[in-house]
Amino acid sequence: MRIAEIGEFGLITKIAALIDEISDGQSPARRDLLLGIGDDAAAWKSPGGIELITTDILVEEVHFDFAYTDWKNLGWKSMAINISDINSMGGRPRYALVSLALPGRGEAGDVLDLYRGILEISNTFGIAVAGGNISASDKVVINITLTGLAEGNIMTRSSAQPGDLVAVFGFPGLSSAGRKALSQFIDLDADALRIFKNAHIRPSPDFNNGPLLASLGVKTAIDISDGLAADLTHICMASGVAATLHLNNLPVHPLLTRYFGRDSLKMCLAGGEDYQLLLTAAPDVLKRVNSALDQAPVVIGEITEGQPYAVSLLDEAGNPVHIDFSGWDHYKHPN
Amino acid sequence: MRIAEIGEFGLITKIAALIDEISDGQSPARRDLLLGIGDDAAAWKSPGGIELITTDILVEEVHFDFAYTDWKNLGWKSMAINISDINSMGGRPRYALVSLALPGRGEAGDVLDLYRGILEISNTFGIAVAGGNISASDKVVINITLTGLAEGNIMTRSSAQPGDLVAVFGFPGLSSAGRKALSQFIDLDADALRIFKNAHIRPSPDFNNGPLLASLGVKTAIDISDGLAADLTHICMASGVAATLHLNNLPVHPLLTRYFGRDSLKMCLAGGEDYQLLLTAAPDVLKRVNSALDQAPVVIGEITEGQPYAVSLLDEAGNPVHIDFSGWDHYKHPN
Repeated sequence: MRIAEIGEFGLITKIAALIDEISDGQSPARRDLLLGIGDDAAAWKSPGGIELITTDILVEEVHFDFAYTDWKNLGWKSMAINISDINSMGGRPRYALVSLALPGRGEAGDVLDLYRGILEISNTFGIAVAGGNISASDKVVINITLTGLAEGNIMTRSSAQPGDLVAVFGFPGLSSAGRKALSQFIDLDADALRIFKNAHIRPSPDFNNGPLLASLGVKTAIDISDGLAADLTHICMASGVAATLHLNNLPVHPLLTRYFGRDSLKMCLAGGEDYQLLLTAAPDVLKRVNSALDQAPVVIGEITEGQPYAVSLLDEAGNPVHIDFSGWDHYKHPN
Repeated sequence: MRIAEIGEFGLITKIAALIDEISDGQSPARRDLLLGIGDDAAAWKSPGGIELITTDILVEEVHFDFAYTDWKNLGWKSMAINISDINSMGGRPRYALVSLALPGRGEAGDVLDLYRGILEISNTFGIAVAGGNISASDKVVINITLTGLAEGNIMTRSSAQPGDLVAVFGFPGLSSAGRKALSQFIDLDADALRIFKNAHIRPSPDFNNGPLLASLGVKTAIDISDGLAADLTHICMASGVAATLHLNNLPVHPLLTRYFGRDSLKMCLAGGEDYQLLLTAAPDVLKRVNSALDQAPVVIGEITEGQPYAVSLLDEAGNPVHIDFSGWDHYKHPN
C-alpha cells in the first residue's frame, strides 16, 4: 500500500506494532523506557530524573517556504516546536542537536542566520546547542533533536479519565491565520497582519508552564501541533476515552472572527502549529492550576466514557455540530 | 560566500564560533557540557555517568541510492553509523529516535523493511527505538539520533599527545571498494563482490570495543567515516599535534590490492565510511589493549609535535610520499 493511502498516522501505527513485535524487551534500555513511540517525546528513567527526547524534521516547501519566512525566524521556529514537545511532557529542555541538509549553492551567511535564531531561543530557555551534522541536499532539511529532564512526574497523552475537564492555553488558530495571510491576498490591518504572521513564522507561546503544571498534578497534556481537535483525538485514542467540546467556550481570537467570520471556528479547531498546551485534569486539579498561574487555561469541554475515542462538538443549546476538523496528516493534506 | 565554496568543515567552524560567541555560558546545561560541536558525539555529565548523543542525516542520492541498496540494509546502515559514533566515544548505545521524510508515492512495506533493518541491529546492541517522526518529502531523508552512556572515561579527538602510537582496527577502504563495485563495471569474483558490497551497504565492524578501550586507558579515538587520513587529521587539528604514517604498515586488504593495484593505498587512506576505530595511545596503554583484545589494532604511525597539524606519509625507506588523501567533504566531493 502506498504511504499516501495509509497516511502518516496509519504508518506510525504499523511501525509501533513492528517495534513491539521485534524489539528485545529484555534489554536494559527497554526496561527503563517509560514512553516510546506515540507521545510528544520519548521518556526513560535515569538516576537524575526522567529523561526526555524529541525530534522534528522540517522540509523546505513542505513545512516552510522562504517566500514567507527568513532564515533567522526559521531557526527560531525549528527549535520552538521541539521546546513545545518537551514542555508538554512537563520537562525542561537541555541539549539540542541540529542536523542540516543544505544545497551547495546556498549562502553560508544564511546558515549562520538560521543558527542566530536557534541560539536566540535556546538562550531564552537555557538550552545548550551541543552538536549536529551538515550534509548536501537539493532542498533544505532541518532536523532538530532536543533532550529534556523532568524532575517530577511527566504528563502524557494516555492518562485522561472520564470526568476530567479539557482546557487550553492561548488562542488556537492564529498560526493558521498567519499561513493564510502569507500565502493568499487578504486585506488586513497592520496589527492583525503582525499578530497572524508572528504566530506562524515565529511562534512564541509560554513554554515554561509544563513543569509547573505537572507539579500541580496535571497528568495529561499535548501541544497543539496538528490542530486542537486532532490533538484532543490523539489524547482520546491513547487514553481510551472520548471528549465533548462546547463550541461557545472555544477561545476564538477576536481578530480571527473579524477577518475569517464563520471559518474562524474551524481554524481554531483544526488550524495546527499553535504550540500551546491542551490539557485534561480533574476539576480540583484545574482549580489549583488556576490559582497558581497568572494566565489560566480556558475550559472548553470534558472527557467522557470510552468509545468511539472521538471528539464531539456541541453548540450553545447542547446540539451536535458537524465541522470537519480532521487535523494535519502529511500525506492527506499535501501542500 | 556560497556553502559549496566554504565547504562542510569551513561552515562547521563558523557555526562553532557563533555558538561560542552567542551562547549563554552560565546555563546549567552549558556548565554540564563536556563536549559540544566537533567530536563524534556531544557529551555531558549526569548523575548516571557521561551522557552521549549523536545524530546523522542521510539524503537519497547523496548518501544512498536504491539502485545499490535495499531498504532493510539501508535501515541497518543508518543505525550502524550512529552506533559507531557512540562506540568511538567509549559509550554504549541506549535510545534511538528515527526521523523520516518520505514521498507519498512510496510503499508502506518498504518503510517497514527499513525499520526491520533498524530493529535488527538495535536488538544486537541493546538499543531501544523510542520514537521518531514522519514527514512528506520529494526525496527520502533519514535522520537517526542515538543516545549513549559512558560509565567511565570517554575518548575524544582532542587528547592525542606526541609519542602516542596511531593504531587502526580492520581494513579501511573496503567500503570504498564496495561503492566502486556497485557503481562501476569491475570484473570481480563472487567472494570479493560480497565482501566489498557488504562493507558498503551493511557495515558490520565490531562496535563493542569502545567502552573496553576507554577502560584500558585509551583517551583518543575517532571512527573512520571521512577516511583514515582525514579522520586522523581531525584528531591532529583538535589535539594540536601532527602525525606520521608508515605506508608499509597500513592494513591494505589483499583483495583491495588484487583488484585495485596502486589505487588500493589511496582507498585505504581516503575511502571513508569504514566505521572502524582509529585510536592513538601511549605504547604501554597499547600493550594493555593488545593483551586484552582477541583482534589487536594495527600500529600504522605515531603522533608528533605540533604544527602544521597534518598527517605525513613515509615509505619504507623513510622518504615522504605524496598521495591526495583529502577526505570526504559534502560540498567538495559532490556525488
